[in-house]
Formats: sequence, C-alpha cells, structure tokens
Amino acid sequence: MFVSNIRHALNVKRADDFAQWYQEVISAADLAEESGVRGCMVIKPWGYGIWERIQRLLDDRIKNTGHDNCYFPIFIPLANFEREAEHVDGFAKEMAVVTHHRLIQDQKGKLVPDPAAKLEEPLVVRPTSETIIGDAMARWVQSWRDLPLKTNQWANVVRWEMRTRMFLRTSEFLWQEGHTAHADAAEAKEHTLRMLEVYRACAEEDLAMPVIAGEKPENERFPGAVETWSIEAMMQDGKALQAGTSHYLGTNFAEASGIRYQDPEGSQQLCHTTSWGVSTRMIGGVIMTHGDDDGLRVPPTIAPRQVVILPMLRGKEGDDALIEYCQSLHDQLAKQSAFGERLRVLLDTRPGKAAAKRWDYVRKGAPVIIEVGGRDMDNDVVSLLRRDQMWAENGKPDFQTPTREEAANGMQELLYAIQANLFQQAKERRDANIRTDITDIEGLKEHFADTAVHPGWVQVAWSKPTGADLDAVVETLKDMKLTVRNVPMDDTPTTGACIFTGAPAVERIYVAKAY
Amino acid sequence: MFVSNIRHALNVKRADDFAQWYQEVISAADLAEESGVRGCMVIKPWGYGIWERIQRLLDDRIKNTGHDNCYFPIFIPLANFEREAEHVDGFAKEMAVVTHHRLIQDQKGKLVPDPAAKLEEPLVVRPTSETIIGDAMARWVQSWRDLPLKTNQWANVVRWEMRTRMFLRTSEFLWQEGHTAHADAAEAKEHTLRMLEVYRACAEEDLAMPVIAGEKPENERFPGAVETWSIEAMMQDGKALQAGTSHYLGTNFAEASGIRYQDPEGSQQLCHTTSWGVSTRMIGGVIMTHGDDDGLRVPPTIAPRQVVILPMLRGKEGDDALIEYCQSLHDQLAKQSAFGERLRVLLDTRPGKAAAKRWDYVRKGAPVIIEVGGRDMDNDVVSLLRRDQMWAENGKPDFQTPTREEAANGMQELLYAIQANLFQQAKERRDANIRTDITDIEGLKEHFADTAVHPGWVQVAWSKPTGADLDAVVETLKDMKLTVRNVPMDDTPTTGACIFTGAPAVERIYVAKAY
Ligand SMILES: [Zn+2]
Ligand SMILES: [Zn+2]
Repeated sequence: MFVSNIRHALNVKRADDFAQWYQEVISAADLAEESGVRGCMVIKPWGYGIWERIQRLLDDRIKNTGHDNCYFPIFIPLANFEREAEHVDGFAKEMAVVTHHRLIQDQKGKLVPDPAAKLEEPLVVRPTSETIIGDAMARWVQSWRDLPLKTNQWANVVRWEMRTRMFLRTSEFLWQEGHTAHADAAEAKEHTLRMLEVYRACAEEDLAMPVIAGEKPENERFPGAVETWSIEAMMQDGKALQAGTSHYLGTNFAEASGIRYQDPEGSQQLCHTTSWGVSTRMIGGVIMTHGDDDGLRVPPTIAPRQVVILPMLRGKEGDDALIEYCQSLHDQLAKQSAFGERLRVLLDTRPGKAAAKRWDYVRKGAPVIIEVGGRDMDNDVVSLLRRDQMWAENGKPDFQTPTREEAANGMQELLYAIQANLFQQAKERRDANIRTDITDIEGLKEHFADTAVHPGWVQVAWSKPTGADLDAVVETLKDMKLTVRNVPMDDTPTTGACIFTGAPAVERIYVAKAY
Repeated sequence: MFVSNIRHALNVKRADDFAQWYQEVISAADLAEESGVRGCMVIKPWGYGIWERIQRLLDDRIKNTGHDNCYFPIFIPLANFEREAEHVDGFAKEMAVVTHHRLIQDQKGKLVPDPAAKLEEPLVVRPTSETIIGDAMARWVQSWRDLPLKTNQWANVVRWEMRTRMFLRTSEFLWQEGHTAHADAAEAKEHTLRMLEVYRACAEEDLAMPVIAGEKPENERFPGAVETWSIEAMMQDGKALQAGTSHYLGTNFAEASGIRYQDPEGSQQLCHTTSWGVSTRMIGGVIMTHGDDDGLRVPPTIAPRQVVILPMLRGKEGDDALIEYCQSLHDQLAKQSAFGERLRVLLDTRPGKAAAKRWDYVRKGAPVIIEVGGRDMDNDVVSLLRRDQMWAENGKPDFQTPTREEAANGMQELLYAIQANLFQQAKERRDANIRTDITDIEGLKEHFADTAVHPGWVQVAWSKPTGADLDAVVETLKDMKLTVRNVPMDDTPTTGACIFTGAPAVERIYVAKAY
C-alpha cells in the first residue's frame, strides 16, 4: 500500500497477525461462526452462498467430464475399514463412532444412550467413501461394457480434529468426492490427471486462485493410494494450501471390495479405481488469496452478489424517486450476463445508513458497490467502487462517477476485469515469492529463518527418496516446520544433486510451510 | 387399460401387488438400491437426478420467499434435546448416537471404539435441526430490526427406523429444512402458511402431484409444535402420503433456546418460530402418483432427461450418417427451453440395440423417446413415443412419425402437454376416489372393508376432539388401519354431527390409510 493514511475496515492487518486477520475476515464478512458443537461450524448466508457458487460451477465441470451424481450412505460399517490395510491406518484413528440407536432417560431424568439399543457392529460417520462406494461398484460392474464407471457425490464428511480452524480444518466439512472405475491402469491414471486439471481450472478460472498442479511425494499419499496428485495454492503469508487432491488407487480398493469385470475375452479382471475431492477448505483458500486489510474480496464468478446498489435513503420524500432510479439500474443489470450466467445484483433498500452498509459490503467483498445519492440522481450518474482497487491515492475510497447508462453498459466488462485482476495479483505475488536458487539445507534454513523476507515457497532438486530415506527428509523438514508439497506436472527434468540426500536429483519439488 | 394384449415392461402390476410393484419400479427405473448399511439406501444417477431437479426448483421457490441457505452442524449435543419437553419425547427415541471419536484394534486385530476416546457428552446425528438452529438464532437475533430471520438448509438427517422402505422411510434421508423467527404470532402463522403454499405449488406444478393442503390434527403434530400443516397426496393404491409439513412452533423453541429480541419500545420479547421440510420421500410420491405397469413416468419438469434420442445403430456403414441426423435434432432441441430452462436432451449412441434401450427409458420414464432408423432418416421423419400415453389401441407402442422439423418445433409444446396430462390424470383419479357421503363409523368400516372398490379417502365431519377424546378416535381408526390426515385449509365450515363423538361437527377431516 503506497499510502499510509488509509483507515482500513479491519482491526487486524495481514502483516501484523495473519492468523488473527483470517479469523477477523471470517467474522467481518459474516461467512461462518463457531457452532458450540466441538469442531463444527455454522456456515452463514454469505459463506454458504460462495459455496453454492463453487458447487454449481464445479458440478458443471464434473458433469461435463461424464460423471453422474449419486448419494451413498453416511454410515460405514467397521468391517469396511478393515479390508484395506493402509486405508484403515490412515483413517481409523479419528472418526465419529455411532454405537447406539436410541436414548433413554436415566434415573435422574438425564438422556443417555440406551444400553438395550447398542449396535452389534458400530458404524462410522464417513470420513471419505472409498469403501462404501467400492461395495456399490462391485455390484454395478460386471462386464467391460460397464466401464468406465464415473460417479460423484456432494456430501458432508467427518474427521475428528483436535485443533480446528474454520474452513481449513473442521471436524465436519462439506465436499464433493468423485469415484471412478476403469479397465486398466493407463485409463485410470489418465482420468486421475483429467480431474486434477478440472480442479486446476476451477481454482484458477472460477476462484481466481493460481495453483501448482503436481504429484505428492509418497509420504503425503492418500491412505491406500498408489499416486496422489494435488493443486497447491500460495496463501498471502507464504504458506501452501492443498486445495484439492486426485488419487490413482491402483487395484487396492478394487481388491478389497471385489470390483471385477469380465474382459472381452471372458476372463475376470480387477478394476483400477480413482478418487478425488475438494471441500469447503476452498473457501479458506479464497479468503487467504484475495482478502485484504478491509476484509474479503470475492471473485465475481463466485460472489453471491456481484453488484450491490445502495441508495442513500434519508427517510424523506425524495426516497421513492431514488429507489426508482436505483431499481431501473438494477433491472438493466439483472438482464445482463457474465461468465455464462445472469448477473447477481442486489438493491439494498433496508433501513440504515448507506455508508454503514457500504462498509458491510466492503468487508464481505462484493466486487462492485454502487452508491446513489440525490445529487447523483440529479446528474444521472452513480458512485461506483471497485472492491479490488478501492483506495485512491489520497487515502479515500476511489469512487468513479459514470453515468447510469455507462455503469449499466460497462458492468459485464468490469466484472471480467475484476476477475482477471484478482487472478493477476495473486499470480504475481506467488511467482515473486518462489525461490529456485537454493541448493543446500543450510540455505533452506537461512531462507525460512529470515523474518525480513516473505517466506513463500522454495523449489529444490531432489532424488525422490522413498521409505526410510524419505522419512529422514520429512524429519529434517519437520524440524524447520516445513513440508514437501508437490512436484509440478509440467516441470522439465532436472540435474544436479538432491539437497537432502546428495544423490543425483531426478525432479524438483516444492518445500513450504503449509496449512 | 382398455386393451388386454399389451405386454407390459414390469413383472408385477399395480393392481396385483402394489408394494411389490413399488419395489420393482425403483429397481427397473434404476432409482436406488439397498446399500448393505442398515436402513440406508444408495440413490443412483436417475433417482438422484430427479432429486437434483426437485432441489433446484424448490430452492428457487424458497429463495424467492426471502430465505438464505446456511449450513448447520450434523451433530447435536444431548442437552439440546432435554430443553424442549415434547421435542425430546418425540425424537429422543430412535436416533444415531455418537459416543466415541476414535477406533483402535483390539487384541485380535479387530477395530473397536477406543475406550480412551469416549465422548464426555454423547452427540446425536441430527434427526432435525430446530434446537441447533435455535441456538444460532439466539445469537443472531438481538433487535426487532433483525426480524424476520429466514434460513434454510439442505442436509442429510437420520432417524433410526426398524422397518424401512426406499424413499418412503429410510434411516438416513435427504431433505431441506427451513427455519424462521418472527416478532409475533400473526406473522409467524402467516409464514407457516406461505411455505405450505410453496410446497403445494412445488408438488402440483413441478411434480405434477395433486395435494390437499391442510392442518394436521393435534395427535399428528410435530413434537413441540403449536400447529402442524401438511400437503397430502393420494397414491394409486388410495393411501395418503404426507409429502411435506410446515409447523408454527409458537414460542416453545424460542423459550428453550432463548431466542429473544428487543422491541421498538426497548423491552425483551420471545420470538415466534416456524419450521418446514420436504425430503427424498417426495420421490416415493412421484413413483406412486405417476408410475404405471411399464415403470416410472417422470414429469418433464423434474426429468433428468426430457427427451432421449435413440439412433438404431447397426454397426455398419450407415451409422455415421444416422448419428449425424440425430445429432442435428439433438442440437436443435438443446437450444430450446421449457419451464424456464434449457431442454435436457440425451443422444444415446452407446452400443446396444435401440429396442432394448427404448425399454430401459420406458422403465425410467423419460417423457419423450425418439427412435431413428435408416428408413426414418430417408423419409426425414423420426419415431416419437410419448411415455404418458404410450400404448396404441392395437396393444403396440403408439409411435408417431413427425418430420424431424415438426418434432423439433413441437417439442416445447409437447412437454407442457405431458406435464399437464400427468397432473390431470392424477387429479381425476384422486377426485374420483374421495367419498364425502359417509356419516357414521359403520359406513367407514364398510367402505374400507369392501375390497371391490378403490379405498381412497373419506372426508368426514368431526368435532375436533382433543386429549383423551382424540386418543379414543385415533384408537378406533387404528383398529381399521386408518388415520386422520388433515383438514383442508379452504374448506367451508360444516354442520351436522361428528362421526366419532356425536358432538356437533366443526370441520371436515380426511381419513385414509397412509404411508
Ligand atoms: Zn501404498
Ligand atoms: Zn404442544
């Protein structure tokens, strides 16, 4: 910020306390709040509206790749988890376990689980649905003609978390999980990458959030997966956020659930399966990518309201004419489209001062805020604020005053410009904060210890160690609070020595602090 | 059916075994299946597609009445249920209770709930969310300016059921639950009825399912409600299906959760709240309203695919031209709209015989099925089957052969006609099977005992008994396997004597067997 006399809308600045700033944005933008139930949040209208937008856009992309939506049970029998060894290790730890199906009142009148209604076999609230969908696939797939089988579901899942953070890590969260079965490894791997590309496109085009798509190292694989791929986004504090994953599961789950098909020659074959998911965590990514010291900035594609019109009502006679003037602008805008959909325009005529409402929508991050006072109306203009560049050099909100006609005619273009600008800002910041010139662990340590520079990410050459060698690398990094993120898919092969093992490097991997 | 030589697509006819027929439709139309998890079903693409359509249309209606969608936790602390006495009695019985948050392997290697991870306070998987949303409302409502507060959520809920039936009664189901808070009783009651009207419109206009909107008698009220209203639909076996309910909750839940506001004069007041929901049960209603002996018939508004085009491929040279011919029809149709949305058209070029596919889509109930063979193409026509009137007098499928141009140009009108026809058929059947001339219990008994007539519903005069008097009525009816349904809202006052108590009648109530 080149001016210092701005009075920002939030109490905490990103630079001062990023974690605290994150919480304040969530509260100031009225996105979500603690529910009182351990680890679960209430997603409020503006936050849920963003999720509905993400759902709609991503659902279209998923359907366009030939998937049908289904719905599978929330409860998973314990036995399902015992089938796949790595999967149970990965998930059996922190899950919500249903043991009773009835409550009764005890002698003091307090409700307790009824001992007579204990389940013979406890049920787990799904942390993910590979095993239960695997059961269904085993029923649905008989012949090679049934393949590929491409399903998806939108659902809530539960993973018991000790330390929670709204949107980033909650015990219950909302997500989509896609599951497919294929005849062979090549097709399944291709599909794993195809869905990774869907996630990249969704993140970058819909959420204006630049990501690196690449493969996770072995230690970061989904429990039971053969390959795990991710999209990783850089938050404004330099940390990495894993925003979506796509897994090639080999035949591990097919074997555990018995997903077999008869090939054209008549012999039985195991299917190769994939799974992939993104969640409400994406909203955390949007906040930490686009938020600023005035609150959230929502990209127009996913903004519940793209344009908010605020007549400066005075509780006086002129109000009716003012509302009519605004209504006409509203109607002109509401007929238009951008990003393939009708514009989402709000004319807010609730009682209250326009300036107070303006700051509400600034904190919520509505892309365009239009204020209209009596004088604007007399001059046939409106006062228009772009949320993505809202401060003028004088430290005041940078209102433009197009005619009403200009505002209406230019809105589509303006929204596209805001969307592009948000992406551009985020991409420039990310690219400026990636270092590729560090060649030893000492350099890594120094870089991340230097509080004067933005930490960002470091891409290093490595030898792709496995097993105990990899464990050692992970341990070394853990001491620095660092993790390996992913190996970008389009990276050129590398030369030189692995900075961890000294062995010849085979690829370059991102190292970063992470959420 | 006026012809007897039809070979219907299902094995079981409605007239022979309605319950068995219902199960066969679900399986033949590929709507859902048992999951292997007690009481939970898997909703398959065609069934979930119908649910997505219902969701989209109803969500628009709910948003148009000023509601915002939110999301609330799946887990509800036990203490919440203890607050409202009637509510706990109504719900505390059969619920899924989470008691542990971790699994471990026992000595035999079997997964068991970890005794060290027992929850201090068990959590209930929500059977409905009045109490947890009440907590949120208590935080959100401070002043009269915050009212009315109108929320809605789309979610899964769990009520442990001993005997389950797909879509009609499952332990887990999907629904929408709306919750509102108002300043006074009059506004809350008005809103209760407004949402009942939304449900009526959704049932009749979107699902083509005629319903009676009315008030439930005291014994059928939602636990904790002051008034419960419902829409009731007559299934083809004459039974009533409660397809949606809207409750005026008085100040009961406001008191339990502390939902208070400061009125303009500065004193604290309790809010009056409402709640209302419809669920995947609606799909059961669609099946039993529109299904026939050939499978499901889906109203065009909610059909995942409204038009299915089946080229009669022969694995030969002419196939390419045939597909091109069909593709052009597909593209012409896909540009058109009906019911405010783009037409949903499927061109099915998968391998397989067109006739076999035709019967698949007949069983699924796609509104319009178009077959195109080489000869059709040569004559520039298509063979078009209306699923709602598919049999000709000669007992064969009643294919029409419009030119391709006629088929394309007439499709919008045809879909409206099918929608209207399905509603009309259902309404005529319902109206023909309501008796209003029965004036004593003996008559009621005789009517429902007579297996030669369609049982349907009987509307009787009653004195609106309460307490023990009502219990006696319920008991009498129970012996006949009957229930009181609702009192239609627009009914004129009645005279005469209550058929149960002999006291002067005050209104007329429907009596029926029910799902
Ligand atoms: Zn492995
Ligand atoms: Zn009561």
